[in-house]
Amino acid sequence: MNIVCIGSGQVATHLVQAIKQSGQTILQVYSRNLTHAQTLADKVNAQAINQFSQITPNADLYIIAVKDDAIETVLQSLNVKDKCVVHTSGTISSAVISKYFKQAGVFYPLQTFSKNKVVSFKNIPICITASYPAVAEKLQQLAQKLSDKVYLIDDEKRQALHVAAVFACNFPNHLYAIANQILVQNQLDFEMIRPLIAETTDKVMLNLPHTVQTGPASRADEITLNKHLNLLAKLPAIQNICQILSDSIKLTLK
Amino acid sequence: MNIVCIGSGQVATHLVQAIKQSGQTILQVYSRNLTHAQTLADKVNAQAINQFSQITPNADLYIIAVKDDAIETVLQSLNVKDKCVVHTSGTISSAVISKYFKQAGVFYPLQTFSKNKVVSFKNIPICITASYPAVAEKLQQLAQKLSDKVYLIDDEKRQALHVAAVFACNFPNHLYAIANQILVQNQLDFEMIRPLIAETTDKVMLNLPHTVQTGPASRADEITLNKHLNLLAKLPAIQNICQILSDSIKLTLK
Repeated sequence: MNIVCIGSGQVATHLVQAIKQSGQTILQVYSRNLTHAQTLADKVNAQAINQFSQITPNADLYIIAVKDDAIETVLQSLNVKDKCVVHTSGTISSAVISKYFKQAGVFYPLQTFSKNKVVSFKNIPICITASYPAVAEKLQQLAQKLSDKVYLIDDEKRQALHVAAVFACNFPNHLYAIANQILVQNQLDFEMIRPLIAETTDKVMLNLPHTVQTGPASRADEITLNKHLNLLAKLPAIQNICQILSDSIKLTLK
Repeated sequence: MNIVCIGSGQVATHLVQAIKQSGQTILQVYSRNLTHAQTLADKVNAQAINQFSQITPNADLYIIAVKDDAIETVLQSLNVKDKCVVHTSGTISSAVISKYFKQAGVFYPLQTFSKNKVVSFKNIPICITASYPAVAEKLQQLAQKLSDKVYLIDDEKRQALHVAAVFACNFPNHLYAIANQILVQNQLDFEMIRPLIAETTDKVMLNLPHTVQTGPASRADEITLNKHLNLLAKLPAIQNICQILSDSIKLTLK
């Protein structure tokens, strides 16, 4: 398959390299910033471009991996009428692409990507949405070359999945950051709680989370909860988060 | 070292087995419920008891691993005047023990313990607080037989650590439970987001969490944030958590 990638951010960078490694050809990498396009293009032996007019009409698949609010602009500028065009967004509907292209789809890898950290795609769920069965089949074939976990889901399910992902990834990471803030203020090192974080995650790899909930709120231990709230008195925003999440845990006890 | 354990819950069960494996002798396991005491005592070749009057005065160390609000009751009933007595609580001050026993301390393993899941103590931080250097040394020697990570910290630091642990363990697990709730309502399986949870944790094993924050709030992507809040309209408590945590992440961007 010959592929053009529009975008050069984290998702584009990780996805395009995985696609290349699976044996496909990356023809071009587009970015408004040519240096950014070049950095990624160099990694996958592709042409770097920064003008929409340079985009070849001869690819089999066009992957739009840009920020959500830039997708529509890209679609308006993309002059490849009968080709298969997908975006990689969890939240944007596939209908946005269908407005412009008949062969429309979504190719959503459900993972958090960071600079300088390689992730194996084998284990990353890839969620496919497609305007037609033939498009679905094409995208599934590509996805299966990258990952053992390919799901065909509709827009509504993907959007729910994206919200769940925020609760499972972005919010926990922010709570780790708050934990670190509390530690630093007490001259303690984040390293001390890394084993706890690892074990907490390890537990939900085999169990459903509500079945392994621990901590003072899950025991309705009001004395400890109040002590914690008092300890956070000088950090009212964090105290508020502590109160709301503890209350939410207590609601599950009913 | 000859040890008596008062308590038979998760902490007692995991800790006492690790201590036994390190080569110490567990003389007795006390629980109000003799069956519970027996279950644990059988695992460590100890005597099961359910009366305080049965507790031998001949141990080197008495470990009180009961719920926080039961510690004081145990201390009042424990008739081993000159012996070394510790509790395992993150929040209760060591001074509570010092009121009753001169050789007072805290032996706090920083981990989340669940039924039926073995954890290796080698990697679990054990935090020691002690009334005297000699007690500290005794507890440190025992701790070092169990774990490579032994910390001598005061009550205040341990209490802060316990709050941090709630943010790093109990709250993230609850957010996983919310994610699961969202998935289930959309006929999706928790298995889909397990790789994301694993990677999120993996990232903070080598990085500080605020340096690897991702997601719509960390990009101040208001369009996606509003979509997510709208998707959660029928779950107002969860919507509120989404709003507050997103706002908290946005505050870190300044």
